[in-house]
Amino acid sequence: MAYAELTAPKRIILTPGPVEVDPRVLRAMGTPILGQFDPAFTAIMNEVMDMLRQVFQTKNHWAYPVDGTSRSGLEAVLCSILEPGDRVMVPIYGRFGHLFAEICERYGAEVHTIECPWGEVFEPGHVIAEMKKIKPKVLAMVHGETSTGRMQPLAEIGRACREQDVLFVVDAVASIGGADVRTDEWYIDALVAGTQKCLSVPAGMAPITYNSRIEKIVLARKKVERGIATDEDRAYPRSMRPITSNYFDLGMLQDYWSPRRLNHHTEATSMIYALREGLRLVLDEGLGARFSRHKLHEKALIEGLLAMGLSLFGDPVHKLPCVTCVNIPDGTDGESVRHMLLEEFGIEIASSFGPLHGKIWRIGTMGYGCRKDNVLALLGGLEAVLIRHGVKVNRGEGLQAALDVYQSEKTKSIVLK
Amino acid sequence: MAYAELTAPKRIILTPGPVEVDPRVLRAMGTPILGQFDPAFTAIMNEVMDMLRQVFQTKNHWAYPVDGTSRSGLEAVLCSILEPGDRVMVPIYGRFGHLFAEICERYGAEVHTIECPWGEVFEPGHVIAEMKKIKPKVLAMVHGETSTGRMQPLAEIGRACREQDVLFVVDAVASIGGADVRTDEWYIDALVAGTQKCLSVPAGMAPITYNSRIEKIVLARKKVERGIATDEDRAYPRSMRPITSNYFDLGMLQDYWSPRRLNHHTEATSMIYALREGLRLVLDEGLGARFSRHKLHEKALIEGLLAMGLSLFGDPVHKLPCVTCVNIPDGTDGESVRHMLLEEFGIEIASSFGPLHGKIWRIGTMGYGCRKDNVLALLGGLEAVLIRHGVKVNRGEGLQAALDVYQSEKTKSIVLK
Repeated sequence: MAYAELTAPKRIILTPGPVEVDPRVLRAMGTPILGQFDPAFTAIMNEVMDMLRQVFQTKNHWAYPVDGTSRSGLEAVLCSILEPGDRVMVPIYGRFGHLFAEICERYGAEVHTIECPWGEVFEPGHVIAEMKKIKPKVLAMVHGETSTGRMQPLAEIGRACREQDVLFVVDAVASIGGADVRTDEWYIDALVAGTQKCLSVPAGMAPITYNSRIEKIVLARKKVERGIATDEDRAYPRSMRPITSNYFDLGMLQDYWSPRRLNHHTEATSMIYALREGLRLVLDEGLGARFSRHKLHEKALIEGLLAMGLSLFGDPVHKLPCVTCVNIPDGTDGESVRHMLLEEFGIEIASSFGPLHGKIWRIGTMGYGCRKDNVLALLGGLEAVLIRHGVKVNRGEGLQAALDVYQSEKTKSIVLK
Repeated sequence: MAYAELTAPKRIILTPGPVEVDPRVLRAMGTPILGQFDPAFTAIMNEVMDMLRQVFQTKNHWAYPVDGTSRSGLEAVLCSILEPGDRVMVPIYGRFGHLFAEICERYGAEVHTIECPWGEVFEPGHVIAEMKKIKPKVLAMVHGETSTGRMQPLAEIGRACREQDVLFVVDAVASIGGADVRTDEWYIDALVAGTQKCLSVPAGMAPITYNSRIEKIVLARKKVERGIATDEDRAYPRSMRPITSNYFDLGMLQDYWSPRRLNHHTEATSMIYALREGLRLVLDEGLGARFSRHKLHEKALIEGLLAMGLSLFGDPVHKLPCVTCVNIPDGTDGESVRHMLLEEFGIEIASSFGPLHGKIWRIGTMGYGCRKDNVLALLGGLEAVLIRHGVKVNRGEGLQAALDVYQSEKTKSIVLK
């Protein structure tokens, strides 16, 4: 059987990731590849490191992608610093807190969790008090929890971690590039990002950064592959517990990302091209301007949804700007609404996981996809689909409210000029 | 500092990977992405599985990519079937045998290695006799060893594994798409491939396949993430030893690649597009025709190199068709030759690892890069660079010999028609 050329329908992707890729990123991926040790390519790798530092707001030397989807970055960091029996604390306020706990458990850590209801975040003082009791080696916490659309304040917790000599590991997969993430100012020791959300790069890479506190542990567990090790490598003092994973061994990854370029994997060239272009576009827009843009479209979306007669899920004070969670109206089949929106309007929104499955829809306004035309298309389409599902909505009001937000913003810009 | 748009010099990449990506694959990557649960995307995922089965020459149900570079596939298979203390046998005839051993050791297996000199392969009877003594749970073996340019015959060893109830795990990263790989006929239980070599897709995915013997082990260790588990998942009987890696847990990966589509990672959309197109082009050319093409250009390259006065490294009977290893002439600085070839001619060839570093060059003729114009460009450029390095070569003879091969092939084709 012969296969046809690839075709994909045109979609408006308003899930919390993956989201529309910026066309300039798609174009960059079409660039013919270079060999992994070609000086022209290693120069690009170095540029990517430098751009990542800026986006992460860090002076850390190490900032590079792990070649895998976002969770590969979480696992790389955790398995490189945790040894069996190490104590880890994970405050859980949604699905991805559970993921942190699960990864740590699998690698044999003694995991202590605290939980708060999905839709809320932790009061920092509470986390700090628990941390003082538990005395963990690592505190792992999600910054932007896509499953519930919340964002956890981290500054106070970070400061306390440093004071208590606890390693602070943060999952900023959903927030990076869409909301302020201050790695150094918040005393984050290791931070993991994702590409397929607010960076608007396809899934498949997990940019990470970590400081010398992490590096020290990694170097003590260093192991160079026998097939390429020199006598010097073999003489390197190392602990009895090398990192279990070869693929996720940060010691080997950083050797590959260092001037030594010690071969580990074969870097994913086209994804590096995509990441470089995605980061370039973020820096070109400016972090502040980009975060403001995410806030503007969030506001238009929220006003539109409320005016339509829908209600939002979760603590509004700690809402993740790029993910808006909507309560599914009583008696409405949420999946049927989603399917009709996709089939008739080509618009994709998401459901959620675990206790929230069937209870909320999640709408992502992330990166390149965070645009006026997308917000307006969604409000128009959703109203029509809800009417078809017999839901009482305030007809026409959603789009009017969103347009009001955009027009008042325009007036504000004119006044400011 | 503002960054310029991405630019990359045009190269002829004749290393053993990554190699030139087919322009049709680059174009496919430019297709706008789809959401991971969009029916249009899951249909593409199913097509990729089906195409992989054909390329792997298997009837296995499971055939899908791991989202990581080639070694991620090796680690995914091994960590999913090995428990601490399990006995593994690894016959090593180059760098990537050491990698097999290292991954298994890290996961706590009891690893037994046998070695033969780099440049040779094992006599199957010898491997089988050792296996009968060691009685491993798993025999892990490299099919195409890029570090030495050799290809290990596997059929007899596979049959013996099945007879002895040993799991046969094969690294076919370098051979897939360039030489015959018969998963089922050779009784291979799990096979790992790579994208960046003879498939001519960028690095970043590791297509794998495995049969029900492997799946049985995986299912017994199955674990569903707490954030998304149903009561049924929690009731599933499971061993006390879940797979250590979350990212590489084949049980979770196959749930994601099954109709259940249970969320694990976010599939790397653009790389799936690339893989689909790469596989489509392999199947369109036809496996037999593709392998013949690799043999033809290998022949032209070898004849050219020999006519120039160079000699080849390694056992000629078991040469990997897509990698040609050349002895660096005595007194010649191999790295200086490589650099000049890259800088003046834009042609990249590789050195090797460990005991072969500085002793051989490795020339890859893989997939899309395996073409007449590339072979001729290399022979012309290499001759000029060698002359500049004071090496005595038979001037002009290399290209003449290669042209002879191509012209006699043309005559043959005409006669056959």
